[in-house]
Amino acid sequence: MAHISLSFLDHIARCNNHDMKKFLPFVVDNETVGNIRRDHISLLEKFPDVFDLSDTFIGLAKGLNSYSDRTDAFSLVIHKLFENGVLNGWRGEPYPVGGPWGGPHAFEIERAAAPFFGSRAYGVHINGFVHKEDGIYMWIGRRAEDRPVCPGELDNMIAGGQPVTLSLQDNVIKEAGEEAGVPSDLAATAISTGAITYRMENETGLKQDTIFCWDLELPTDFIPSSVDGEISEFFLLPAAEVMEIVDVSFDFKFNCNLVNIDFFIRHGLLPPSHPDYEKLIKGLGQ
Amino acid sequence: MAHISLSFLDHIARCNNHDMKKFLPFVVDNETVGNIRRDHISLLEKFPDVFDLSDTFIGLAKGLNSYSDRTDAFSLVIHKLFENGVLNGWRGEPYPVGGPWGGPHAFEIERAAAPFFGSRAYGVHINGFVHKEDGIYMWIGRRAEDRPVCPGELDNMIAGGQPVTLSLQDNVIKEAGEEAGVPSDLAATAISTGAITYRMENETGLKQDTIFCWDLELPTDFIPSSVDGEISEFFLLPAAEVMEIVDVSFDFKFNCNLVNIDFFIRHGLLPPSHPDYEKLIKGLGQ
Repeated sequence: MAHISLSFLDHIARCNNHDMKKFLPFVVDNETVGNIRRDHISLLEKFPDVFDLSDTFIGLAKGLNSYSDRTDAFSLVIHKLFENGVLNGWRGEPYPVGGPWGGPHAFEIERAAAPFFGSRAYGVHINGFVHKEDGIYMWIGRRAEDRPVCPGELDNMIAGGQPVTLSLQDNVIKEAGEEAGVPSDLAATAISTGAITYRMENETGLKQDTIFCWDLELPTDFIPSSVDGEISEFFLLPAAEVMEIVDVSFDFKFNCNLVNIDFFIRHGLLPPSHPDYEKLIKGLGQ
Repeated sequence: MAHISLSFLDHIARCNNHDMKKFLPFVVDNETVGNIRRDHISLLEKFPDVFDLSDTFIGLAKGLNSYSDRTDAFSLVIHKLFENGVLNGWRGEPYPVGGPWGGPHAFEIERAAAPFFGSRAYGVHINGFVHKEDGIYMWIGRRAEDRPVCPGELDNMIAGGQPVTLSLQDNVIKEAGEEAGVPSDLAATAISTGAITYRMENETGLKQDTIFCWDLELPTDFIPSSVDGEISEFFLLPAAEVMEIVDVSFDFKFNCNLVNIDFFIRHGLLPPSHPDYEKLIKGLGQ
C-alpha cells in the first residue's frame, strides 16, 4: 500500500466536513434537534401543516404536539420525499428525533431520512479482537461489492444502525449473529466502551452520528462468517497492521476509522507520545 | 453512606466550575496559552519587562522570544509571587506553557504557578485493578492526612503531576514505585487508555488540566504499599462499590471522580443505557 501522506487526523476531518452556513437549525420544543439544508427548504413549503418556516430556523407547525401526531406527519412527508426521488435507500427502521439517547424523544422517522433533517442517528460498531502472545489481533471485514454504501471497503467486524425498537445490547447480539455468525452467548460478552460522534455533510444533508463502540474479545479458535452477506470476507490482522492501514489509507469505511482510532487509544496501541494524541481524543467527540 | 442526591455529572460540573468573565486570555506567539484573573493584573504591572498588558489580553513584552529567556523571566516573576505569598506550595517541577503535549512549548514554569497563569497542566492517573471471577476490583488509596491537597480523601491507586523532564511512561513507573510500591517491571505493563480534561476555577486562577489515564491490571496476590507516604492506606473494592461511592459522594479527590467515570465507561461498567451516558462522555473532554 502506497503511503499517501495521510494522518489519523485526516479521518476525523473527513467525518466532520461540513459548512454550517448551508444549514438552518431544525427546532422542536425549543431544542435544536437537527439541521436542514437551506436549499431543501423549498421542498418543505409543500407541507404547511407540518413545518413552520422562517429565515432563521425551521420549526413545527402549531398543533403538532404529540409523539404520535408528529411521527405520523413526518411519515407522510418522508414518503413523499421518497416518491419524488429526494430520498432513497429506505431501511424500514425507526430512528428517534430529539432528546438524549434513551429518550424522551420528540418523535421518530425512517432511518434513511435522518440526514435530510440532520437529526442524530445512532449505531453500534463492535471490534472483535484476539489476545495472542505477540499482542492484540483484530478481526476486520470487507464490505460486499453489492452494498449501496461503501462497497468493497474495510469495516469493523460487526456494525449496524440502532433503531429505537431494540435495546443496544439486543442489537449488538442481533448484528453479531447476522454479520459475523457470532453465537448469542458469545456476543453477549461484548463490552460497551464509550461512543464516538461526528458531523458530516453529504448530498442529503447532515449526518450527525453517535456510534456506540463495543469490544468483543474472542477465543483464538473462533472464525467469523457472514450470514446476511453484508461482509464478503473476514481477516485477522495484528492491531499494528490495522493501525498502519488506518494511518496511510482510506481503505476503511469513513466512520470505521474513528472507531478504530478509539480502539487503538483505549488499548494503549496509540500512546500519548503520538504528536496528535490530544487532538485525536477531542476529535472523536465532535 | 447516605445518598446525597448527587450524580456522576455533578463531578464533571464541579471540575468545570468557572466564570470566564473573571479572566483575560494570556497570549504568546498568537496562541492563547492560558487565562489570568483580571484581579491579578495589578500584580503583573510590576514586571513591565515581562508582560504586555492591555484591557483585552495579556501578552509578553517585546524581546522575550526564546524558550530560555522566557523561562528565566517567568522564574523571576514566580519567585516574587512566592515571596509575596501570592503563590505557595512550591513543587520544584518544571511545567510547559503553550503548545500541544510533547511540544514545542513556548517556555516552562514552576508547577505551582500553572493555575495562576491558567496554563495547561498535565498529570498521570493509574487505576490498578484485578479481574476476579465475579468481576473487576479496583485498588483505591486514601490520601494521607498531612497532604496539603485534599487530605484524607480517596484517590486513584497511583497519580502524579507530569513535569517536562520525564517521559509519561517513566513517570508512571516512578509514581507507581513511590506511591504504591509497584515494582518497575509490573508498572511497565500499565496501558495508556486516553485522557480526560477539565477547567476548574480556584483562588489562584484556573486549573486547565489534562490527565493521561492508565490501566494497570494486577495479579490477584499483589498488595500495594505506600513508599513516600502520600497514601495512608489502600483498599481493594469491587468496581460496583467504587461506582456507588462516586455516584453518591464527594469522598474521592475531585479529579479522581472523572478518571473513575472514564474507567467505568471503558470497561462497560457504566453502560450506554445510563441516562447521562452521552453527557458524561462529552463532559470528560472539556
